[in-house]
Amino acid sequence: MTLKECLAAIKPSDKSIALKIQHKIDFKTKPVGSLGALEAIAHKMSLVQETLDPAIIGKRLFVFAGDHGITAEGVSAFPAEVTPQMVLNFLSGGAAINVLCRHGGIEIGIVDMGVNFDFKNAKGLIDKKIAPGTKNFLKEDAMSETEALAALEAGIAVFTDAYTKQRFDIVGVGDMGIGNTTSASAIIAAVTGASAADVSGRGTGLDDKGLANKISVLAAALKVRSPKSGDGIDILKKVGGFEIAGIAGCVLAAAAHRVPVMLDGIISTAGGLIAYTLNPAVGDYLFCAHRSVEQGQAKALAHMNLTPILDLGMRLGEGTGAAIAIGIVDGACRIMREMASFESAGVTNKE
Amino acid sequence: MTLKECLAAIKPSDKSIALKIQHKIDFKTKPVGSLGALEAIAHKMSLVQETLDPAIIGKRLFVFAGDHGITAEGVSAFPAEVTPQMVLNFLSGGAAINVLCRHGGIEIGIVDMGVNFDFKNAKGLIDKKIAPGTKNFLKEDAMSETEALAALEAGIAVFTDAYTKQRFDIVGVGDMGIGNTTSASAIIAAVTGASAADVSGRGTGLDDKGLANKISVLAAALKVRSPKSGDGIDILKKVGGFEIAGIAGCVLAAAAHRVPVMLDGIISTAGGLIAYTLNPAVGDYLFCAHRSVEQGQAKALAHMNLTPILDLGMRLGEGTGAAIAIGIVDGACRIMREMASFESAGVTNKE
Repeated sequence: MTLKECLAAIKPSDKSIALKIQHKIDFKTKPVGSLGALEAIAHKMSLVQETLDPAIIGKRLFVFAGDHGITAEGVSAFPAEVTPQMVLNFLSGGAAINVLCRHGGIEIGIVDMGVNFDFKNAKGLIDKKIAPGTKNFLKEDAMSETEALAALEAGIAVFTDAYTKQRFDIVGVGDMGIGNTTSASAIIAAVTGASAADVSGRGTGLDDKGLANKISVLAAALKVRSPKSGDGIDILKKVGGFEIAGIAGCVLAAAAHRVPVMLDGIISTAGGLIAYTLNPAVGDYLFCAHRSVEQGQAKALAHMNLTPILDLGMRLGEGTGAAIAIGIVDGACRIMREMASFESAGVTNKE
Repeated sequence: MTLKECLAAIKPSDKSIALKIQHKIDFKTKPVGSLGALEAIAHKMSLVQETLDPAIIGKRLFVFAGDHGITAEGVSAFPAEVTPQMVLNFLSGGAAINVLCRHGGIEIGIVDMGVNFDFKNAKGLIDKKIAPGTKNFLKEDAMSETEALAALEAGIAVFTDAYTKQRFDIVGVGDMGIGNTTSASAIIAAVTGASAADVSGRGTGLDDKGLANKISVLAAALKVRSPKSGDGIDILKKVGGFEIAGIAGCVLAAAAHRVPVMLDGIISTAGGLIAYTLNPAVGDYLFCAHRSVEQGQAKALAHMNLTPILDLGMRLGEGTGAAIAIGIVDGACRIMREMASFESAGVTNKE
């Protein structure tokens, strides 16, 4: 599936059953609205699946990994060599995302979109390497337009290959890439018009001096690259990351197949934002797992009118928040399917 | 187990392994602190279980039900007959808490602590009825001291009977009782010294006029009953509820057996607060599932130094928030057990 075909296949969800969905929710044995976010989630899932009985059986999550030339500017507390080390940790099942996917019954896939390391056909790794890391976008464009398009289509292929083999009902998207909060922040600033300071956080643990440097690097890069706010491809090319492009492609393909997507923290939210910029109808298929400690995420979520499900003070990435939140969406679908109505249970409604 | 024996058996958790626990958490393959609340949960569970490898296998949840004489003052949007109707709904598996317990692999138990209905030995119901509802505590004490003590010991028995038959590693506590936010708010005001207005919410859906009436009833009742702030038994007797006393007893018994408890919304938090007033060491065994829409809960949580795990805008009670949060505690324990360390995974730590 090409990017063009994928974008053309994405349609907004059909809202014609919205009233029926809300009626079913409101006449369940509980005060109206008392299940809070679970009700909103159940409603959106019903629209996505075009049914009053939404269900999540198969659960998938992909971790997209890539390296970032911008790390040369000292924007991360961890060295770049950690990206491939963590990919190997994912493959051997020892990272937080492995644990939480096992916990949540979620099948995990690890994708090399552009890690600066030769994995030599490591077992279990999905090899979609575009290049061994992006360029330093303070000095030059992060990638060529050809690479940006190839990375988006690689993300589309990751989704469609897996989905063709074995269908699933929700897909989580996570990331690994030392330096990638800087790229994600740049994307969010480019799309929303927010300032470098407004979208920058401490990443994996910058101190005050490190944060000040990150903001100054970001402000300078945004000025010299000047990505076009409404042009997702231009933004990816100038300040993006390969793993972020992969996430964006995966989001687009999921929306095209009417499969809901669980965004994680600031990186995958930036990927979702690129997809949203390319076709805003993807918003109908997006959930956001959790409020990231990275403040830039909130700007991106506001732009897409999304509310995070959890706020656990997490800032790890990998899809860890998504893995937890997928279980809550599953629970909300079960509420929709299995919970009794006032009538069926013989319970008196509000006076 | 009598109340006296139970109170004597509760010991604070042993903090001598706290540094070892924190070291294990800090050297897992992630930036320090980046799993946010999951790390704090894993730490507390490790202390409770006195191990670096905490685990949750068996999961239980009890819904304690009772009626409230204070409903005569028009403090609830739903009629009192809904309490027994919902108990029957629980027994037939159709309520939100049934769905969420099935979803979370949690065994559920339904306890009649004082419902104004003859269930005639309904199958599956745990019968601990003290009386068919409390008295109207605007006019007289909610219950006698004998009833308060009996209700606490009934809650202790609910826990110990179940635990003796089949051990479990966490217990959630939920509630059902039309009018019980008024009793819970009164308890919280009595313990913390907060005003009636500060602890009152809309319950199952009061409008502005209903809320104003509830606050005025609560203020008048607190004035005339004047429960003693440090005396959990006196507070229960004067403004409590049978299901709240049952929850308090269950919390005490769990702490005595070093089993962690998941509080739910404002009602179970008020039950936890009574237990905490009787022996503050229970705090070492308490988790709070979620921020209730009922504002009084926050006062009680601050008093016990607890932070809610979730904030999903829920206000249903029954233990619904607890059922979801138990899954998150389970995940946090798995992180503690299964996640690799920097050393074991060969990942470079922060520079």
